Amino acid sequence: MTNETDIAWIAADWGTTNLRVWALDITGRTLAHRQSDKGMGKLARENFEPALLDLVSDLLPAGRIVPVIICGMAGSRQGWAEAPYMTTPCAPPSAEDATRVATSDTRLDVRILPGIKQMSPPDVMRGEETQIAGFLAGNPGYSGTLCLPGTHTKWVALKDGRVERFQTFMTGESFALYSGQSVLRHGLSADKLDETAFRTAVTRLLDTPTRFAAELFAVRAAGLIACQTPEQAGGRLSGILIGAELAAVRDAFDLSDVVLLGSHGIARSYRTALECLGRDARLLDAETITLEGLALAYSSLSKVPS
Amino acid sequence: MTNETDIAWIAADWGTTNLRVWALDITGRTLAHRQSDKGMGKLARENFEPALLDLVSDLLPAGRIVPVIICGMAGSRQGWAEAPYMTTPCAPPSAEDATRVATSDTRLDVRILPGIKQMSPPDVMRGEETQIAGFLAGNPGYSGTLCLPGTHTKWVALKDGRVERFQTFMTGESFALYSGQSVLRHGLSADKLDETAFRTAVTRLLDTPTRFAAELFAVRAAGLIACQTPEQAGGRLSGILIGAELAAVRDAFDLSDVVLLGSHGIARSYRTALECLGRDARLLDAETITLEGLALAYSSLSKVPS
Repeated sequence: MTNETDIAWIAADWGTTNLRVWALDITGRTLAHRQSDKGMGKLARENFEPALLDLVSDLLPAGRIVPVIICGMAGSRQGWAEAPYMTTPCAPPSAEDATRVATSDTRLDVRILPGIKQMSPPDVMRGEETQIAGFLAGNPGYSGTLCLPGTHTKWVALKDGRVERFQTFMTGESFALYSGQSVLRHGLSADKLDETAFRTAVTRLLDTPTRFAAELFAVRAAGLIACQTPEQAGGRLSGILIGAELAAVRDAFDLSDVVLLGSHGIARSYRTALECLGRDARLLDAETITLEGLALAYSSLSKVPS
Repeated sequence: MTNETDIAWIAADWGTTNLRVWALDITGRTLAHRQSDKGMGKLARENFEPALLDLVSDLLPAGRIVPVIICGMAGSRQGWAEAPYMTTPCAPPSAEDATRVATSDTRLDVRILPGIKQMSPPDVMRGEETQIAGFLAGNPGYSGTLCLPGTHTKWVALKDGRVERFQTFMTGESFALYSGQSVLRHGLSADKLDETAFRTAVTRLLDTPTRFAAELFAVRAAGLIACQTPEQAGGRLSGILIGAELAAVRDAFDLSDVVLLGSHGIARSYRTALECLGRDARLLDAETITLEGLALAYSSLSKVPS
């Protein structure tokens, strides 16, 4: 049984789709880990505090204030409260950069970490900056390239522990749209991807990036008249999209030692694609990194005037 | 009032989304033009004849058989009856290539024109081959490049009046998906497109096609932090997609005198994009051309054994 009086603080990763919380003791041990589908996209402003309390109310001790450190889309203009972006080049945000939010429940002390924006070319992130902070906690002063694969994959150039610049790719969202809602959905597996078809498509895109637009409908045509299996179609579509992304990235980022913040399906696909370019990449678990980033912000809380 | 006894034949353009029919007299004059939303995508096999009769039953004279010439997705495997593809290189299909379909209503003599497939690289069309036939009716023996803009834009190389090869681009469908269902839908007008933003995006893609994947999310980021209007976002997205298509096309097709089969919004965007490449293009009305293609098939019907 969890003893509620042990709780030192609460960490929350509040994205567009989901809310994930951890209750932690003063040593950083996780006492409870819970999640719900009450992401920013589904909530009006007044529903954020109830959505948080749904998950943590029973964990809060009476008569004591518990800090809650939040990262992600909850800090967007459409979120709980806008946490204004920091601007590149910058170190990832710490607690003193956070926006404090008033709550009805007096047991909560809520702070939302800001995202990072880049003015030229325009780009934005919310949530990934906290993963970057988590990575830097274990790699202080790091210089090199991070890749955070997902719905909107981020490529980040770090220099001396600061975010120098970054670029967002809609590759995950594009795969979901084309595989789920376009004419390509017929005869295509979005879960089981054939690796040979994936590698072939990545290599072809890297060889001839101008072919991108020509390759998409070919996935459907090959299913109709060339005996392509659904797994090959899925691998091929993924390879076209990630290959096009790498074609854009290789001129803009140092790919000699990429760190992928992610360990599951999509991150592994990125590692395979980088192999097609003759590059190795390291995989780190994204959830662990996120929690480390939130813990870093919590540890800087003592420096913030309350 | 239409005098039903004048009807010589019925032309039908039966796509995935809509059914359009024309009733014509022996001179080719249109006696009636009707349409419904009973496209192939919504119909089980047994519903095609009723969907056709909904539109034309009152026009059919008693005791006489009226030929019905159909092009489009009604001839696909999921359609009314499969009209097997012809294979490139080939002339567009005529009535003798059509698949005859049995009907319950004895006043109908239904023939579905085949599509065209290309084995390498795999590609398919259904419906556009009839527009090509219509164009060739007025331009016999033509050699050059046709572009048929739409949900799935086709680029076609004609040689001596035959379809030499072709390539399909999902540009129209991609614009609908990104502008309607992706994160880009926020702050984006899909109807009113800013032409300067469109031209800028086309030119940038043609200069640096590898940037394609990097350009998409930038449309959203510029709306968040760089004062981009919805019309500029729409123009920019369209320019990115059509620019990427032209980057793939310009190495594969002769763009010195492109004929665009289409006259409305999307065809005009293609003409503007070709202007960015320093190329002129002619616009022809797609509906007129479709009807001319169906009329050509009707005129060849006398050569077919009944």
